[in-house]
Order: sequence, then structure tokens, then C-alpha cells
Amino acid sequence: MAKLFDKINYPSDIRKLSKEKLPQLAKEVRQFLIDYKSQESATGHFGAGLGVVELTIAIHYVFNTPKDRLVWDVGHQAYPHKILTGRKNEFHTNRKYKGLAGFPKIAESEYDTFGVGHASTSISAALGYACAGTIQDDDFHSIAVLGDGAMTGGIAFEGLNNAGARKKEKLIVILNDNKMSISPNVGALNNYLTDVMVSTPYRRLKDGIWDVAGTIKPIGEQLQKLVGRIEEGLKGLVSPGSLFEKLGFNYIGPIDGHDVIHLVEVLEHLKKMQGPILLHTLTVKGKGFKFAEDDAVKWHAAGDFDPKTGKSIPKAKKGVSFPKYQDVFGEAITELAEKNEKIVAITAAMLEGTGLKPFAAKFPERFFDVGIAEQHAVTFSGGLGLQGLTPVCAIYSTFLQRAYDQLIHDIALQKIPVVFAMDRSGLVGEDGPTHHGSFDLSYLRLIPNFVIMAPKDQDELRGMLKFATEYKEGPTAIRYPRGSALGIPKVGEFPEIKLGKSETLQEGSDIAILAIGSTVAWSLKAAEILETENGISCEVVNLRFVKPLDSEMLLRVAKKFDKIVTVEENSIPGGVGSAVLEFLMENRIQNVEVERLGIPDRFIDHGSPKELQKEIGLTPKQIAEKIKNLLKVSSKDKKIVA
Amino acid sequence: MAKLFDKINYPSDIRKLSKEKLPQLAKEVRQFLIDYKSQESATGHFGAGLGVVELTIAIHYVFNTPKDRLVWDVGHQAYPHKILTGRKNEFHTNRKYKGLAGFPKIAESEYDTFGVGHASTSISAALGYACAGTIQDDDFHSIAVLGDGAMTGGIAFEGLNNAGARKKEKLIVILNDNKMSISPNVGALNNYLTDVMVSTPYRRLKDGIWDVAGTIKPIGEQLQKLVGRIEEGLKGLVSPGSLFEKLGFNYIGPIDGHDVIHLVEVLEHLKKMQGPILLHTLTVKGKGFKFAEDDAVKWHAAGDFDPKTGKSIPKAKKGVSFPKYQDVFGEAITELAEKNEKIVAITAAMLEGTGLKPFAAKFPERFFDVGIAEQHAVTFSGGLGLQGLTPVCAIYSTFLQRAYDQLIHDIALQKIPVVFAMDRSGLVGEDGPTHHGSFDLSYLRLIPNFVIMAPKDQDELRGMLKFATEYKEGPTAIRYPRGSALGIPKVGEFPEIKLGKSETLQEGSDIAILAIGSTVAWSLKAAEILETENGISCEVVNLRFVKPLDSEMLLRVAKKFDKIVTVEENSIPGGVGSAVLEFLMENRIQNVEVERLGIPDRFIDHGSPKELQKEIGLTPKQIAEKIKNLLKVSSKDKKIVA
Repeated sequence: MAKLFDKINYPSDIRKLSKEKLPQLAKEVRQFLIDYKSQESATGHFGAGLGVVELTIAIHYVFNTPKDRLVWDVGHQAYPHKILTGRKNEFHTNRKYKGLAGFPKIAESEYDTFGVGHASTSISAALGYACAGTIQDDDFHSIAVLGDGAMTGGIAFEGLNNAGARKKEKLIVILNDNKMSISPNVGALNNYLTDVMVSTPYRRLKDGIWDVAGTIKPIGEQLQKLVGRIEEGLKGLVSPGSLFEKLGFNYIGPIDGHDVIHLVEVLEHLKKMQGPILLHTLTVKGKGFKFAEDDAVKWHAAGDFDPKTGKSIPKAKKGVSFPKYQDVFGEAITELAEKNEKIVAITAAMLEGTGLKPFAAKFPERFFDVGIAEQHAVTFSGGLGLQGLTPVCAIYSTFLQRAYDQLIHDIALQKIPVVFAMDRSGLVGEDGPTHHGSFDLSYLRLIPNFVIMAPKDQDELRGMLKFATEYKEGPTAIRYPRGSALGIPKVGEFPEIKLGKSETLQEGSDIAILAIGSTVAWSLKAAEILETENGISCEVVNLRFVKPLDSEMLLRVAKKFDKIVTVEENSIPGGVGSAVLEFLMENRIQNVEVERLGIPDRFIDHGSPKELQKEIGLTPKQIAEKIKNLLKVSSKDKKIVA
Repeated sequence: MAKLFDKINYPSDIRKLSKEKLPQLAKEVRQFLIDYKSQESATGHFGAGLGVVELTIAIHYVFNTPKDRLVWDVGHQAYPHKILTGRKNEFHTNRKYKGLAGFPKIAESEYDTFGVGHASTSISAALGYACAGTIQDDDFHSIAVLGDGAMTGGIAFEGLNNAGARKKEKLIVILNDNKMSISPNVGALNNYLTDVMVSTPYRRLKDGIWDVAGTIKPIGEQLQKLVGRIEEGLKGLVSPGSLFEKLGFNYIGPIDGHDVIHLVEVLEHLKKMQGPILLHTLTVKGKGFKFAEDDAVKWHAAGDFDPKTGKSIPKAKKGVSFPKYQDVFGEAITELAEKNEKIVAITAAMLEGTGLKPFAAKFPERFFDVGIAEQHAVTFSGGLGLQGLTPVCAIYSTFLQRAYDQLIHDIALQKIPVVFAMDRSGLVGEDGPTHHGSFDLSYLRLIPNFVIMAPKDQDELRGMLKFATEYKEGPTAIRYPRGSALGIPKVGEFPEIKLGKSETLQEGSDIAILAIGSTVAWSLKAAEILETENGISCEVVNLRFVKPLDSEMLLRVAKKFDKIVTVEENSIPGGVGSAVLEFLMENRIQNVEVERLGIPDRFIDHGSPKELQKEIGLTPKQIAEKIKNLLKVSSKDKKIVA
């Protein structure tokens, strides 16, 4: 039997179907996603997309996309959208190097209206579109779809506050309420939405009105007014959505987000209404795949699995396997907290990802998940620190950008000893440019009073954590990459780390390599290649500290060598290499040539970590090649002395 | 007659007074503030402090500060707090160099619990304090006082969302509702609060309950429960504060924020309650000074005036007076918008300060004040830009830090042509470290795809604006300082600016000075001093662009000179000087000595712009002195070649 989905490539194809066919289409789309995801080598987000299959179909069915502007928040949930907007046949390239992106991306499709990845931006973007429509007298709808998790981010509230006061724009905010961000949601808004869900009498009443109205087409103006008036009457009394109505939105819901026919009917009504609308839909993350429905956290972005049993298929292991940085962090901080009762931990909706689960289990009173709210997480940590605690605030490198002002204005200016544990620094791989932690060493380095570190391996992370929790002069930041790295951590032991002191890993005579974090291992390997293949002798230094730099070591190295290579998994402008240039010039050392290797000054697309490492020229082989060129092309007698 | 206020130095002194004396104290404190402010040379915020005199007295009377933690949001309103917490006799040094800070500052007093200046941080900080109290079993109250303007900032909502779900902490959030931030407030929350104010029947009812309860002391447990139950009954029905109650807060109010006795009674009740409380007080900005009550915008931070008539006393003029940068910007953008209907302007609650008033008056439909919501302002501008408009987003340098992630993730990554007009860059003077725009050139420079400019004078600002509104490849940023600068703008003319092209202002033979923005004039003056006094011939280049740098000029200058000085009113690490170092090393030019002048790597306190310029060593004389040293100490034959 030919599948319905076989004939669907674009939203225009969906619109040719009768409404009654849509549940079948939803079923097939869902099966496509499960089949895709169960393939070997398919990575990426899973549960979120399954949860919005009906919503995606209904929106594209009712609205005239891409002229009507549909903005997906975060974008974890955009797979159904992608395969229904011309990308079904390329979808096997999803998240692969040079393939489709795992998130909406303007460059990829006219149906992708806004690049997302960080949460809570969709209302602002959609309102921007809507206001531009008003100004340019261009008639279209703007629709933002965001989860209840994303709704807690400050910018979402700022967007609501602005949108709620504007009455001309055709703006629909769809709150996709599944009680989850990546972890289960927390906070007062979540409690509120739970209350709303259980207030069924109102819901039934309201749904009833909509159902009646839905049967009469076209809705007469009189009836519409009547419905409006009944609505108004209910609102002041027991409206479950009064939070949003107080903010100027016309609140509709909650409705079942998996009943595609009802969704279509409701959206068709909303299309005729004026002013900002909030449609509250209830969905289940992982819907239609039992295993994912039962454990949404695990299935947010699962690995390979058997679609029949839901069982994970472990990846074939090659050699020794190392623990993940996040777990080393989580265990080390728990260990330290056993001896130091001042230590508390803060996360912004990333209990699992940050590795804080064991800490939270052991010290529930000393653990704070503040929801998707990085700004608050940082300033809140400041308050904890000022009252005598030692806050360890664990936020991914890329998400800490959200709290940049708080780092400067609330923490650094007041020298509050907060420890920032920044996972996912450098290039994160398949999640791509929205998630790379490419900038942290540069953006932190320019803030006064910050101590900045990066460990070369897992034991060093332990040592740096101990150092940081004992440092009282101001804030510290430790950045470390996604995934596993070198070394098996020695539980119970914490290598000694001294403020601003580097570690010389091997002495050499031809050139010095100054490396930091992940690039230390790559540099050692490059040195080995150079030694073996070319007889070039490299001195390799693990910087450990980006701020303060080890001035003693730098003076020594600058005296010994006339060529230095700096290697960092961080953007080159303003990065570690620049810090070295600054140091040398401040000390009027001009006879040392410095080659700065790192992430070039452009956004890096997605791909596997290996592919991206190669793209930016930081594989050991490439590093070795660059050093060879450096030693050959500009040997001493060829140096420019103008 | 001896004044009551003469005997008051600390909150402990206030607590010795009978409640009935407090209105008199309020009157005297208010008079102190008016007398202070009407003095010649007193600068600073005015209206906000007058609005919270009673609130300040009541809080310190009822609560055990400093053990109880009082966090003032923004801090514009902290003058009464300062003079009631041991700083009355030093208050004449307010905002003066080495004197008291214009905002709360931890280093200044144990009563200042959190350094503020940027809006909306107080709930997060106070909750941090409160949670630290719970963990350490330390019994105290945490009180955040924030205005309705600050309540629209995303981090305030993030804080509310987190706090509302926590029931153990003794947290009181006082919403000081005066309908103003600096400009009148906007947005849905503001509309909502207006609705609350007019719902008097409920208010009277609720106040009545409190009044009755207030007469019986100590409140019996039974009565307390009863009050609680009546409260509960009312809530679901017509509670004006239901927005906050939905978020888990116990809402009390609105009450008159100028009735100090009633405030004391209410706060005494609240002190006995559990869980998060939101007290809604209604106040008048500028209260007690008629002229300020009538025009709160003007009197937010007024200049000298006659306390009898309220009339401004114009400062004695010295020589030619130049318009302010903000006004040049406002007029230029209005002029450009007349010819280019795609131009729209966005501000985050800074209509006056950004100079956008003429634009808003002329093009109300193309003007957006989104409230204190910098993150939203930026992403919203992105949406406007993607739909074909040319958004000019005017946010002060220091406040744009709030939207750093949005600059990277929403704007630069997607190459959206948004123009950022960044006023108050560099050192702003009396507002101090929370307001200095010290970091923008560094923090923007590391973001790919950004074009970054700074004008040397007002005509150049006009030219840069024209260039930026016509540039379509990605975002542009123009940073310019607070206050007036050089040149009378030629209306109708826009000097031509070419991407990445600098301007050589004078040729020389001994040394090159590369300057940017405000430092161009200082450098020219320094060159003049050097020429006249020492016969040193300086080449002076106005860089215009920090990104992309003018590579042709740099190559030329590096060939011509062996010494270059860079001068920027921006932090040295990662700044313009570093960009020059990076460029030279990339081009393997090692025989040029570069001296980088700028803001040192520490936070700079407040003071007059002149004093601060001197502190960081950037007066023309100091620049000249440094250049002399450079030429003397390390003349050619003494260069270190190790």
C-alpha cells in the first residue's frame, strides 16, 4: 500500500489533503522519525519531535507557510517540520558534516525563519516579524512555538510583556506544554501550569464552546461575538490562563496537542482573531514511542536503539574508555562537598547534562535547579556567595553567554567567589554553531578579577575544582569540553594546582608549544610526530591558566625560543594566543615569532568532533604540519627585520 | 528647634523612635535630599529617592538590617537608604571622585548588600541570600525592592519564577510601583499594574482586613488563620495580584507607599509570614517636590536648580558648546529615516537618553520602546531585520552586555543587518563602574561577522550611521561616548565612510598614534604638545573601524615607523591595541614596538570624566608623556633583541 507520506514533500501537499487524512499522515511521519532514529549513526534529538508531529502538521495545514512566519523555539522539536518542508529525502544527512542542521537554519530553507538552539527567543523573533508586517502593510501571521521549559527564560517573558501590549499584530504564541525541558521543569510557572491542567471543569466547558462553534461554518459574526462574550465572562472568574491574560494575551486552552483534527479547527478559529493569542497545548514528549514516553530524559537525545524493544545498542568500544568530563565534574564536586559543607551547586535546567545528578541526590538541600534561567542562576549564585557559601554554578559555555552582564556586573565587579563550571567548551560537534563553546576564553579574559582555567585531563579538572572552591579572592571559571577525555580520575586524590602556574610537560629545543585544555593532548601528539618524523624537538607547556598567565614560564620560554605556537580550542581574536602576544609586547620581547592556532574568526558549522577539528586545522597532524612550515619558511636568517 | 534627623545616624536610631515620629523623620529626610540636590555641583539621581523615603524608613524600622538583607534594585533610589545608614555626614561627597558611590556598593557599607546599577537583579540576589540562610540555619529576612520598570527585565521574571516555587525562605519582594523607569513604563505588565490600581473595591476590602487584624496585638493564631482563609477565598475571584499569585507569591497590596505608619504595620505583619511575599506599594517619583512630581523624566537625574522655583540653573558656559552625541544620533537617524522608509528604531526604556525622542515623535509607527528588556530588544530587532527592515537598536554600551548571547546567537550567526547604536561607551563619569562602557570593543571584536566603528566627532557619527544603515552583509555597531563632543553636526550632510578605511589626520616622522573614537581628539592634542614642546613629529590616524581593521594603512604605518601607540577608551585586554598586535604578528611584522593605552584591567570607580581620564592616564599630557618615555627609553639602538 502506497503511503500517504510518500506524496508529501511540502506544506502545499499537506493542504491538498482532507482534514480526515491528517491523523494517518501524523502516524506515518512519526514512524518515519522512529525509523530514522533507530538507524545506526543517527544522532540527535528525538522525544521533542515526536511530541509535536500533530502540531507541526496542523500549523502547516492551516497557515500559509512560508509567508506566514513559523518560529520554533530551541529547535529540538523541528524534525517533523524539516521533513514536511522539502527535506525528507535529505534527512539521512541530519546533523552530519555538510548535511542538514539539527536545528532550524535560515540558510537551509525558506521555511526556517529563525536560527535557534538557545531557548526562549521565539516570541521576540516572531514579534519582530509581526511588527515588520504591520509597518510594511504586509498581511501574514507570525507563530512562535515554545515549550513550557523555554517559557521560564527571561527573554521569553520580555517578549510576552512587549507583545501583550500590542494589539495590531497577528501573533500566535503556542505554548507546547510537556512538563519537560531536557530535564523535568521546575519553578513557579511549572507549578502554575500543572494547576491549569487539572482544572478540568473549566477546560471541558471551554472546549465545549469551541466544539459547538467549530461545527458552524463559516462562523457568523454574531456567534463569534457571543463566544467572545462568554469567554470574557469566564475569564475574570476561573480562567486557567489568567497569568497570560493579565499580560494582555487572549488565552485559549489547554487543548490536546495530539488531536490533529481538533488542532486544525482551533487554529482556523485563531486565524480570524486579532491581537496576541496564547494557545496552550498539552503534549507528551516522545509521543507514540512507548519507551520514550516513559523516560523522556533518556530519550531526549538517545543513542542507537532497537525500535522493537527500545533497548540501547552500545557503541563498539575501541580500546580504553574514559569517563565523560561531566561525570568527573559531578563526582569530584560531590566528593569535595562531603568535606566542605559550604559548597552548593546551581544548574539552569541541566541536571543530567552537567553531571550534577549525584550531587543533587546526596545534597538535595544544597542543590538548586533554577530552570532555563542562566541570568538568574549567576546572580543568585552571587547572593549565595555573599552569604558565606561556595557556589559552583554549572552552565555550558555557550549558555553562559546569556549571563554575560551578570558575570561582569554582579560577580566580577564585586569579586564574589563563585566557581563557574563550564562544560561543552570548544566545538561540541553535531549540535553545531549555536552550541559550540567557541568564545569563552576570549569573553571571560577581558573581565577584570576573573581567574580562568582549563584542564588537560580529568584529574586536572579535579585539581582545578579543589583549587577553585578554596579560592576566595574572586570568581573562577573552569572550562572543559563535551564528552570523554584523557585519564581515569583518581577518586580521593586532587592534584595540586597553584594560581597562575603552568606545567611544562616536555622540554625541547626547537620550538615551544603553549597549549590549554583539550589542545594539550593534541599538541603532545603533534610533538611526537615532529620528533619521530622530522627530528624536531618541541617543548610542550600545559598553560592551565589563561588568566593570570604564568609570567615566569613565559619569560623563560621567550628567552629560550624564537618561535612559539599557541594552541587553543577557542576563537583566535582576543583568545589565549592574543594574551601571549599582549604579554610579550608588555615585556618588550619582540624577537619571538608567535603562531596562534585556534578557531578561526567565523562560525563553524556542525559535524563530528573529528571532522570539525580537522576543519579548523587542529588535528595533531595539522598542528605538526604548521610547525614544520613555521620552522622551514621563516628560519632565523629569514626573519623580517625590515 | 533641633531636628529629629540630627539624632539619626543608623537604623538602630530610627528603631528607638515611636512609630508616630516617623512621618516627621520622613519629612526631614526628604528636605535633606532636596537641599542636597539643589546645591551647586550635586549631580545624580533625584526623583527615585524622594519616592521611597517612607519605604526606606519603614523597612529599616521593622527589619533588623544589616542582618536582615535589603537589596535595592538598580539603586537610583538608594539615597535615603545611604543617609540613614551612617553616611549622612559624607553625603556631600556623593558621586564625587573617591567619595560615596551613587549606587549601593558592598565595599562602602555593610548595609549595602549588593552592588547594583543595572536593573532587575534584586530578586535573584535576595533569593541567594535567603537560600544561604536556610542552608546555614541562619534566621533572617531577605528583602528586594524593585520598581515596576525593573520588573519587566527578564532576570526579574526568572527570579520570581524560582522564588515562587520555594516555600521555606523568608523572602519579601517589594514592588515599588511608580509607573516609571527613567521614561514612563511600557508593556503588558505596566497595563496590568494600572488595572490593579483602579480595582479599588478589592483594595478597600483587603486593606480593611489588614486594618482590623492590625489593631489586635499579638495577632492570635486563630485570627491569622481566619485572615488567611478570607484571603484564599478572595484570591481565585478578583485578586488584583493574581499574576504574582499564579507565580507562587503571597500578594499583598496595593498599598500607599507614602503612608509610613501603615507601611510599618503591614511590614510587621509580613515579617511573621512564611514563604515568598510580594508587597505592592504605590509611590510617586519625586514625591514631596512638586516640580519633580509633575515631570518625573526631567527630574530623574536633574542638574542644578533653584529649590524654590524648580528652575534649572544653567551651567556657566565656557567657549563654544557642542551638542550631545545622543542628540546628534537622534537627529541623524530621523533625517536618514525620512529618505529611507525601511529604518526603524528600537530602545529598551531609554527614549530620552538615547536621543530617540524626535524619531519617536516623527515616526511613531516605526519606533519601538520595549521596556527594560535588552535581550528582547536585540532578538526582536533580528526579526524586524529578517522581514526586510533596517533596525537601529539603540542601547547603552554597558546595558548591551545584557544581550550578549543574542548578539552572537541571534544576530551575528545569522548575519542580520541590525545597526547597534551604543551610547555611553568608555568611562561615563559619576555613575561609576556599573555604567562604564569599558568592554564593548573587546567583547564585540571576538564575534564573527560584526562590523565595529567609533566616530571621532559628531559628523563622523552621522557618516557612520548612514554607512551602517546601508550595509547589508551583517550587523554593525557604532559606539560613542556620553555627553558632548567635538564639532557642530552639519545637518543634511553625511561624510562618506568606507568599510574598513581609516583616516590619517596628520602625517609625522617619529611615531604613529592609532586612535579611535574619543581618543582621536586627545591624541591630536598630545601630538601638538609633543610637536611644540619636544619637536617630536607624530603621525595621527583615526582608525574609524575596529573590525575590519584598515590593513593597508597598518602595513604602511608599520613600514614607516618602528613605534606605534594605540589609544582607546576601552579595556586593554582584547581591545583595539590587541587587534593591532594580532594583525602585525599575522603579517610577521616583529620590528615594531606597540604601546597599548586604554582602560587598565580593573574596574574603574566613579568620578568626573576628567578625573577618570587622568586616572587611566589618557589626558593629552599623559599620552604625550608616555610617548616621550617610549621614544627616550627605547630608542633604536637600545631595542631588546635578546
